[in-house]
Amino acid sequence: MNQKKPVITIVGATGLVGQEMMACLESSTIQLSELRLLASSDSAGELYKFRGDEVQVRELTEQAFAGCDYALFATSAELSAKFAPLAVAAGAIVIDNSSHFRMQEGVPLIVAEVNSEAVGKNKIIANPNCSTIQLVAVLSALHKKAALKRVVVSTYQSVSGAGKEALDELWSQTLSIFNQRDFTPEAFAHQIAFNCIPQIDLICDDGYTKEEFKIINESRKILQLPNLRITATAVRVPVLHSHAESVNIEFESALSVNDAVATLTASPGISVYPDWTDYPMQLAVTGTDEIHVGRIRRDDSVEFGLNLWIVADNLRKGAALNAVQILAACIG
Amino acid sequence: MNQKKPVITIVGATGLVGQEMMACLESSTIQLSELRLLASSDSAGELYKFRGDEVQVRELTEQAFAGCDYALFATSAELSAKFAPLAVAAGAIVIDNSSHFRMQEGVPLIVAEVNSEAVGKNKIIANPNCSTIQLVAVLSALHKKAALKRVVVSTYQSVSGAGKEALDELWSQTLSIFNQRDFTPEAFAHQIAFNCIPQIDLICDDGYTKEEFKIINESRKILQLPNLRITATAVRVPVLHSHAESVNIEFESALSVNDAVATLTASPGISVYPDWTDYPMQLAVTGTDEIHVGRIRRDDSVEFGLNLWIVADNLRKGAALNAVQILAACIG
Repeated sequence: MNQKKPVITIVGATGLVGQEMMACLESSTIQLSELRLLASSDSAGELYKFRGDEVQVRELTEQAFAGCDYALFATSAELSAKFAPLAVAAGAIVIDNSSHFRMQEGVPLIVAEVNSEAVGKNKIIANPNCSTIQLVAVLSALHKKAALKRVVVSTYQSVSGAGKEALDELWSQTLSIFNQRDFTPEAFAHQIAFNCIPQIDLICDDGYTKEEFKIINESRKILQLPNLRITATAVRVPVLHSHAESVNIEFESALSVNDAVATLTASPGISVYPDWTDYPMQLAVTGTDEIHVGRIRRDDSVEFGLNLWIVADNLRKGAALNAVQILAACIG
Repeated sequence: MNQKKPVITIVGATGLVGQEMMACLESSTIQLSELRLLASSDSAGELYKFRGDEVQVRELTEQAFAGCDYALFATSAELSAKFAPLAVAAGAIVIDNSSHFRMQEGVPLIVAEVNSEAVGKNKIIANPNCSTIQLVAVLSALHKKAALKRVVVSTYQSVSGAGKEALDELWSQTLSIFNQRDFTPEAFAHQIAFNCIPQIDLICDDGYTKEEFKIINESRKILQLPNLRITATAVRVPVLHSHAESVNIEFESALSVNDAVATLTASPGISVYPDWTDYPMQLAVTGTDEIHVGRIRRDDSVEFGLNLWIVADNLRKGAALNAVQILAACIG
C-alpha cells in the first residue's frame, strides 16, 4: 500500500448525494488507497462497485473513522454534528455537506472555483447549500469586474434536493394522478406533482425559510461580503433533478452583457449561453459538471443591472462534485 | 325580449379561455337576451349548455356580429386584429383578451379592481396578459399606501396559459415518460414534463421575451406609471393551471408587513395569507376567483422592501373572469 494515497470515507454513502460523491470520486483523478462507505445499519452489508473493486457498506459508528484520512459527509445536520468531530479526533479531515458547520467561525465554506485556497485552515470544511454554490460561483466571477450592489434571487429547485424519498414522491404522486389513486404527501408538506411549493426547509420567525437564509448568509460568507445586500425566495418545482435560479443583480458600476458573457466564459466551471435563443434548462444540464448561465440581459430598471438564469445539477456541482473538488484541493 | 338585456358573443368560444368565459358569464349576475358562440369552422355546430339552454357554435365570419352588443374575444392577436374592428363596426363593444390592442393609445387596458372606470372611453377594451393582471392588482393596492420605487418579478407560469394543446402536451408527455414512449415537443420548443422553460412567447432583440415585455409595459400602462422601474423573468413550469410570481418590491417610503397585509386584506378580489406557514399554491387556488398573496415579508436588502408570492388562476382572474368583470362594468 502506497502511504501517500489516502483512505477516503463517504458517510451517508447510500443516499442520493453519497452515491453521487462515489460517482464523482470514481471519475476524478484522485488516487486513493481505500474507499470506505458508511451508512445506517439498514444499509450495512450492501455492496457497491468502485473502480473495479467491490466495497461493502459498513455501519456508521463512533469507531468507524480509525485510519481514515478524509471523510466526505453526506448526512443530516444532526449526524454531521455528532460524527464529524469524531472523524477529526480520529485524524481525518472532514468535508461536510450538511448545514451544521457552514456558518461557524473558522470553518471554511468553499466553492471550489471561488475560495479553495481556504482548505487547510481547519479540520472541518463545509460544502455550501446547493442553491448557494451555483449562485456564488457566478456572483464571485462578476464581482471581480463590477462590485455587487444588490442581488434578488428566486429559485426553481428540483425535488432531488430533498433526498431520495422526495424524488420517489414526485414520481409516484404523478403516477397516482394518472391512475386516479389516492395518495398522501409525505416527503413534502403538500402535493408536489403539477404544483410549486414556495417553502424549502423550515419557516423562521420573520417569514423567510431556512433555505432562503442559507442562500443569503452562505453567499455573504463565501464572497467575504458580510453586508452584501441580497434577498431570496426559494421554491420547489415538480422537476426531478437540477436547480434553476432567476437572478437579478445590481452593480456599483457598468457591466455590459458582453462583458458579463466574456467574464463568465473565462471563469472555470461555468458554461455560458451567449445566444438568447439558447438557454440552459434543468432537464438538459442534469449529469453535467458545469454551472450553466443563460438569458444574460440588461435590466434597465437600475443604472447598472443584469438579469441571469443560472442552472446546475444540484447533486453534482451543487453537492457531491463540489465536495470532491474540495477534497482534491485538500490533497493538493 | 327585454331590449335592455344585451346580446353577448364569445369569440373563440371553444378554447380554454373561451370556455372559461362562458363559465364565468354563467355564474355572474349579468342578464343577457342571447349568448352567441363563435369559433373556427372546425368547431361550428358544437353544442354547449348555458343557463339551461343549448347554444350552437357558429363559424366566425365577417358578418357574424350583426345585432351583437358586447363581444368577448378569446382569440389570437391576428384574429382579434381582423375581427374586433368588424364587431365594433357592427355596433358592438369589444373586450379583447389578445395582446393586439393592449398597448394602443386610447385603448383602455383594464384590471377590474384597478381601473374599471376607464370603460366607456373606447369601443375596444383590452384585457391584460394573465401574469400582468395578478401582479398589477397587488402593486396598485400597495402603491396607494407607499409609492412603488422598483419591482423585480420572476414568474412560475402553468401550461394552460399556452392553450389547450399545451395543457394536453404536459399531460401526454408525462404519460409517455412513464410508459417509456418517445415523444416530440410540439406546443413548446422543449420538453415541459419535469422541466422548466425560461422562455414564454418570442425572444426579442435585447434578450427579453415578449411575455416579459408584456408584464413590464402593461403594468406601466395600467398603473399610469410610464416610468415605473420594473423588470421581469417569465418561466414556464410543469404545472397544469394557475400562475405564481415571486415579487420583490422596493418602495419610496416605509410599508410594514402588517400594513401590507392590512392594505391587501381591504382590497377587493385579493385573498391574503398573513400566516407565514400558510401560503397559496397553484394547485390549491385553481378554480378560485381571487388573487392570492402570501409569504409577505420584509426585504432588508433595501430600506423599504417587501417580498411577496402571488398566485391566481390564469384562466379565470388572469383572463376570463377579468373580461367578464370588465363586461359587467360596461353594462353598469
